[in-house]
Amino acid sequence: MDTSSPSLAPALQVERWFNTSSPITLDSLRGKVVMLEAFQMLCPGCVSHGLPQAQRVHSTFAREQVAVIGLHTVFEHHEAMTPVALQAFLHEYRIPFPVGVDRAGIDGPIPQTMQAYAMRGTPTLTLIDRNGRIRHQHFGQVGDLVLGAQIASLLGEPVVDAKDEITEQAGCSADGCAIA
Amino acid sequence: MDTSSPSLAPALQVERWFNTSSPITLDSLRGKVVMLEAFQMLCPGCVSHGLPQAQRVHSTFAREQVAVIGLHTVFEHHEAMTPVALQAFLHEYRIPFPVGVDRAGIDGPIPQTMQAYAMRGTPTLTLIDRNGRIRHQHFGQVGDLVLGAQIASLLGEPVVDAKDEITEQAGCSADGCAIA
Amino acid sequence: MDTSSPSLAPALQVERWFNTSSPITLDSLRGKVVMLEAFQMLCPGCVSHGLPQAQRVHSTFAREQVAVIGLHTVFEHHEAMTPVALQAFLHEYRIPFPVGVDRAGIDGPIPQTMQAYAMRGTPTLTLIDRNGRIRHQHFGQVGDLVLGAQIASLLGEPVVDAKDEITEQAGCSADGCAIA
Amino acid sequence: MDTSSPSLAPALQVERWFNTSSPITLDSLRGKVVMLEAFQMLCPGCVSHGLPQAQRVHSTFAREQVAVIGLHTVFEHHEAMTPVALQAFLHEYRIPFPVGVDRAGIDGPIPQTMQAYAMRGTPTLTLIDRNGRIRHQHFGQVGDLVLGAQIASLLGEPVVDAKDEITEQAGCSADGCAIA
Repeated sequence: MDTSSPSLAPALQVERWFNTSSPITLDSLRGKVVMLEAFQMLCPGCVSHGLPQAQRVHSTFAREQVAVIGLHTVFEHHEAMTPVALQAFLHEYRIPFPVGVDRAGIDGPIPQTMQAYAMRGTPTLTLIDRNGRIRHQHFGQVGDLVLGAQIASLLGEPVVDAKDEITEQAGCSADGCAIA
Repeated sequence: MDTSSPSLAPALQVERWFNTSSPITLDSLRGKVVMLEAFQMLCPGCVSHGLPQAQRVHSTFAREQVAVIGLHTVFEHHEAMTPVALQAFLHEYRIPFPVGVDRAGIDGPIPQTMQAYAMRGTPTLTLIDRNGRIRHQHFGQVGDLVLGAQIASLLGEPVVDAKDEITEQAGCSADGCAIA
Repeated sequence: MDTSSPSLAPALQVERWFNTSSPITLDSLRGKVVMLEAFQMLCPGCVSHGLPQAQRVHSTFAREQVAVIGLHTVFEHHEAMTPVALQAFLHEYRIPFPVGVDRAGIDGPIPQTMQAYAMRGTPTLTLIDRNGRIRHQHFGQVGDLVLGAQIASLLGEPVVDAKDEITEQAGCSADGCAIA
Repeated sequence: MDTSSPSLAPALQVERWFNTSSPITLDSLRGKVVMLEAFQMLCPGCVSHGLPQAQRVHSTFAREQVAVIGLHTVFEHHEAMTPVALQAFLHEYRIPFPVGVDRAGIDGPIPQTMQAYAMRGTPTLTLIDRNGRIRHQHFGQVGDLVLGAQIASLLGEPVVDAKDEITEQAGCSADGCAIA
C-alpha cells in the first residue's frame, strides 16, 4: 500500500509495553521515521522473517533517525499468546526494541490498532514518516533493498511544522474540526 | 553421547499427547528406529533447526522403519509454554508427528523424561535403536549427513528377540531381577 | 569509504563489453545513480554474494534511475579468467546487466580501472552519484538494508548542471584549468 | 537411479588429476564407498550445492571408509573450462579432494566417463559400493539426510572377495567369459 495522499497514523492502542520504561506514543516520535512491525509470536513468517528484519533495521539506522516498534497483534490463539508468553518469547529471541501489546478488539478477535491500520494479517510492516503519516505498508515479506530505500527516502524528507501539519491534515478551522 | 554399552531407553513420562489418537510407548515402537526430538516451543534453536530437521526425517524415512516423536520438555518459562500454547504452536508450525508433553518434575523445574534421559537442554535429539536402546544423543545441532548415516546404520541392525534382550539388559536371572 | 569531498569517478577502462550493444561511459550515465560491481568470475564471495546482490539491485530499481554495471577486474589467475571464459560464466549465471572487462594493467597484474579506483580486491561495490562522483565504496560484503538506503539517498539528491559541476570539480578559473 | 541388479562401475577415463600425487583408479578404492561428484566449474548448481555437499561428505566420513572423487565432466563451453581454469577454480574454492578431468569425447562434446556412466548432466552424484558397483545416481540435488543414509547403508555391506565378485559379475564360467 503506497498511499498517494497519506493519512496520519492512528494512535497506538497498547495495553502493555515491554522493553521500554514508559509508554510510547507516535506523537513523541515525530521527526523520526517509525517502522511499526506487527507480529504474532506464533506466526512462523514473523519469527523467521519479520522480526529478524526489524532487528536489522534497529541495528542499522541511528536511533535518532529511525524508531523500530514492535506490536503484538494477536488475532487468533489468544489463549496461547498471552502477555506472559510474549514476555518469555521476547526474552528468548533477544528482541531489543520496544514492543506493545495491541489492545483487545471490542467486538471481535481483531485487536484495536490492527483494525485501525486495516492490517490484513501478520507480519505487517508499516512505515510512518517524520510527520506521522503512514507511507508504506507491507503484508508478508518485503526485501531489505526496498525497505532500506524506503526508509532512506523518508529520512530525506523535511519535517513539517507540527501545528500547520495537524491543521491541514485534520481539517480544523476556526469553526471547528472535521473528522480527519 | 555415543554409548558403547547402550542402555534401554527409559519409558516416556507424558502427561498429554498431540497429533496421535492414543498414547505412544517406546515398547510399541520396538522394531523401528525412534528419533526423539526434545524441544521447547520458545527455544529459537529448536524452531529454526531441531524441529525442521525432525520434519525432514519424518518425511524422508518410511513410517514402518523410523518413528519421529516430539517431546515438549519445558524447563523454564513454564507459565508461557502451557499445553494450550503448545497446541497453537503445533498448529501454526504444521508439525505432523506425535508430540508428548513431558511430565512436570517432582521436585524441580526439569520434567521427568528429560531428567531420566539426562538431557542437558533443548534441542536434544535422541536416537533409539530397534531394540529400544539409546544409541546417540545430540544436544544442539547435528548435521543431516551424520544423522542420516546414524539412522541408516541403526536400520541395518537386526532386531533381537525381545525376551532375550530384556533378560540381558535388565540383569534378570533365575534368582530374580536386579534393577536395570 | 565514505568520502566527505567526493571526487569524480575515473573513466572506465574497458577492453571488451558484454550484455550491451555499445560501449558504456560514465558520462552517458550522468543523472543516474551507478552501481559498479567489480568482481572476478572465480572469486567465491563475488559469486555467492556480490553478483546476486547486483542482480537484486538491477531488478529492484528502475533502469532510468539506477544503472548496474559489472566490471571484471582480474588481478590473479589471468590465464583462467579470459574473456571467453567470462562469456560462458555470464551465460551460465544469467547475468543480465552490462559487464566490462577491465583493461590489463600496464606494469603489473592489477587492471587499470581497478587501480584508478584504488580497489583493494573483489568484490568491490562502488556507488557513483547522479553527478558522476564516487560516494561509497564497499570491499567485501555490505547488507541490502545499507545499500538500499545509500542508493535511495543518492537518488534524492539533485543533478547539478554538468558545466558548473565540471568547472567546480576540476578547479578551473579564469586563468585556466588545473588538473582535476 | 537405484539399480536392483547393480553393474560394475566403468573405469574412470581421466586425462589429468588434481589434488592427488598419483592417478586414482576405482580398483584401488575397492573396500571403500566411493562418492563420485561429476561437475562443471561454471555450473551454478554444482558450485552452490553439489561441491559443498561433496566437501561435507569428505569432512564427515573417515577417509578409510568413504572416498570422495571429483570429476570435471565438461560437455559445453569447453574453451572456457580448460584444465588451467579448473586449477584456479579448485584453488579459489578450496576443494580438498582429488579431481580428475574427464577425457574428451571421441565423437562429440560428451566426455568419455560421463558417457560411460550415462549421466544426464551436472551435478551428478554417483555412489559406488565397496565392491565397485554403481548403487545410486542422483542428477541435480539430493538431500544430506538421504545421502548420509545411503552411504551408511553401503558401509554396512560386506566386501565380497574380489575374485568371486568379478567372476559372478562378468558372467564367467568354466567355458569362458561372457561380456559383462
